[in-house]
Amino acid sequence: MSKTEQTFTPIEKIGRKGLIQKIAEKFDRHGEGMVYGIGDDAAVLGQLSGSHPLISTEIYSEGVDFDLTYTPWQHLGLKVVSMAVSDIIAMNGKPKFLFLNLSLTNKVSVEMVELFYSGVKHGCDLYGVQLAGGDLGAAHKASTVAVTVVGTADTPVYRSGAKAGDAICVTGDLGAASCGLMVLLREKRHFETSGQLVFEPDLTPFEYVVRKQLVPEARADCIDAMKIAGIVPTSMSDVSKSLVSTLVEMMESSKSGCRIYEAALPVHPETRQTADDLEKDIDTFVLYGGEDFELLFTLPEKDVKAFAEQFKDFVVIGKVEPQAHGIKMQTAEGHEMTLT
Amino acid sequence: MSKTEQTFTPIEKIGRKGLIQKIAEKFDRHGEGMVYGIGDDAAVLGQLSGSHPLISTEIYSEGVDFDLTYTPWQHLGLKVVSMAVSDIIAMNGKPKFLFLNLSLTNKVSVEMVELFYSGVKHGCDLYGVQLAGGDLGAAHKASTVAVTVVGTADTPVYRSGAKAGDAICVTGDLGAASCGLMVLLREKRHFETSGQLVFEPDLTPFEYVVRKQLVPEARADCIDAMKIAGIVPTSMSDVSKSLVSTLVEMMESSKSGCRIYEAALPVHPETRQTADDLEKDIDTFVLYGGEDFELLFTLPEKDVKAFAEQFKDFVVIGKVEPQAHGIKMQTAEGHEMTLT
Repeated sequence: MSKTEQTFTPIEKIGRKGLIQKIAEKFDRHGEGMVYGIGDDAAVLGQLSGSHPLISTEIYSEGVDFDLTYTPWQHLGLKVVSMAVSDIIAMNGKPKFLFLNLSLTNKVSVEMVELFYSGVKHGCDLYGVQLAGGDLGAAHKASTVAVTVVGTADTPVYRSGAKAGDAICVTGDLGAASCGLMVLLREKRHFETSGQLVFEPDLTPFEYVVRKQLVPEARADCIDAMKIAGIVPTSMSDVSKSLVSTLVEMMESSKSGCRIYEAALPVHPETRQTADDLEKDIDTFVLYGGEDFELLFTLPEKDVKAFAEQFKDFVVIGKVEPQAHGIKMQTAEGHEMTLT
Repeated sequence: MSKTEQTFTPIEKIGRKGLIQKIAEKFDRHGEGMVYGIGDDAAVLGQLSGSHPLISTEIYSEGVDFDLTYTPWQHLGLKVVSMAVSDIIAMNGKPKFLFLNLSLTNKVSVEMVELFYSGVKHGCDLYGVQLAGGDLGAAHKASTVAVTVVGTADTPVYRSGAKAGDAICVTGDLGAASCGLMVLLREKRHFETSGQLVFEPDLTPFEYVVRKQLVPEARADCIDAMKIAGIVPTSMSDVSKSLVSTLVEMMESSKSGCRIYEAALPVHPETRQTADDLEKDIDTFVLYGGEDFELLFTLPEKDVKAFAEQFKDFVVIGKVEPQAHGIKMQTAEGHEMTLT
């Protein structure tokens, strides 16, 4: 808990109008491509000519999707931006404008909202996105955040375009975010039974996995590299849910099957170490964990090498097969299992 | 409570994926101006060339912004669409695409969600809007609805353009929605103390005010008439909050003052009758009530007559003055009061 969080100004003290004013000050009302941002009935954007508008929207509930015990407000602000832009990036798009809705309980102070928006600002700067509007409301029991992001794509890439023979690729590594979540939940249980007043666990040995959980980054770098390499994947999605559910969704939409290789799945050493520490099977995280926000995409075989010259942080994990093949994984021991 | 609401299928029985499928079936994935709607990481819209994109987003919490005791799910669905498109209309825009986020508690059944979306569909048809995407999540204690609407405007109208000498106009009548809310809250208190099992009050004498509360309509008809008459207001906003707060916001943004006339404020006879019945001052509703979703706009004097020939359902309630004048109302008794 930071010092700023220790001062508690109730929102009712400055009112909804005062709070909106404080937020609006942090963001440019007339940024690039924007005629008028925060402050009227609706935001007015510049003309989005020449490419397709993309829109994605998501909702996160306190106690279900985020836990304020171990999530600092500024991290939450950054994370919701990353999660939102990730959907636009996964369509081969460029995120441009962000809209944020918050409904807040009276446990939330002006200082906490300011920390949240400093995280949002950080995210906006990171991805070159502008906050263009939103809404603030009250909630009785749990706070909720809803995010809408607008982007553009010259060539949108869907989940549905994978073709038999394509290589299945994934960026970064998998399982870290869900592994980090389990560490945080374990520390929270310790905290709740310890009688301590402040939640200050030593997370040093889990720095990578906790960071992937609290402040994941959307893979804009991969899309930028694809653009430079002149490569358009046949299908793409972000791994916001688990690898398996993302893969199944992609193959079903593409009316295809696939074979992936367990041995090829990218795992960070710390994720492996932490899984051991937690006495959990690594597959729990790698196959069935969520929130990694890596990109899963399919490329014609011929494009793999060309793309690898441009971008280093991806691996081939398998191959698209005809639909009749089913969705299969060859385990490290050489067995074949069906993924569902 | 309708028969459909009496069957309770838990959402977990068909799962998030099953529920999204049920919803998606009701809506066209490739409607006009839409390349791909519900079902991928983001919606892909057709090019919005030639006019400015407008975006507005709002959040509503159960127990704060809506009460499921007296709000049927299909009415809530229709109302959130009306509230959302009202913001686009208030910018002189045409609403086109809708995005809906729901986070739902386990008190919500598949049947309730279906009723909600039948209301949403009704709203979409009413305003010529297409549902293009959204998100479904879980909530522990209270459900939340967040709505984003995308529209376009050739000539956006802001709150800030009012000029001294302009006529201040308002559509329809004021105060009915908040008066209807008070009736519903009174009936809810009766219900809670009565020991009855089903909330079935006789609302016949309050039909108009209750309808304005539960299923308000956005004033697309006014914008259409302005377009036909070739009239662009100097400023405009919807009366989603109270008349006074909308007026103050408009005059502050326009760096202007104004004088309105209490006697000119449009009030429906049933609102007046119900206020008497509730033993409340009518001003409570007309000046300080919210959710009427009428349009407040300013017109150069010369345009008022021309517009009145095209559109009947508005009245002039006052005049824009220089800022130094302040924001004043002349009461029916001839006194002058400052509005804040």
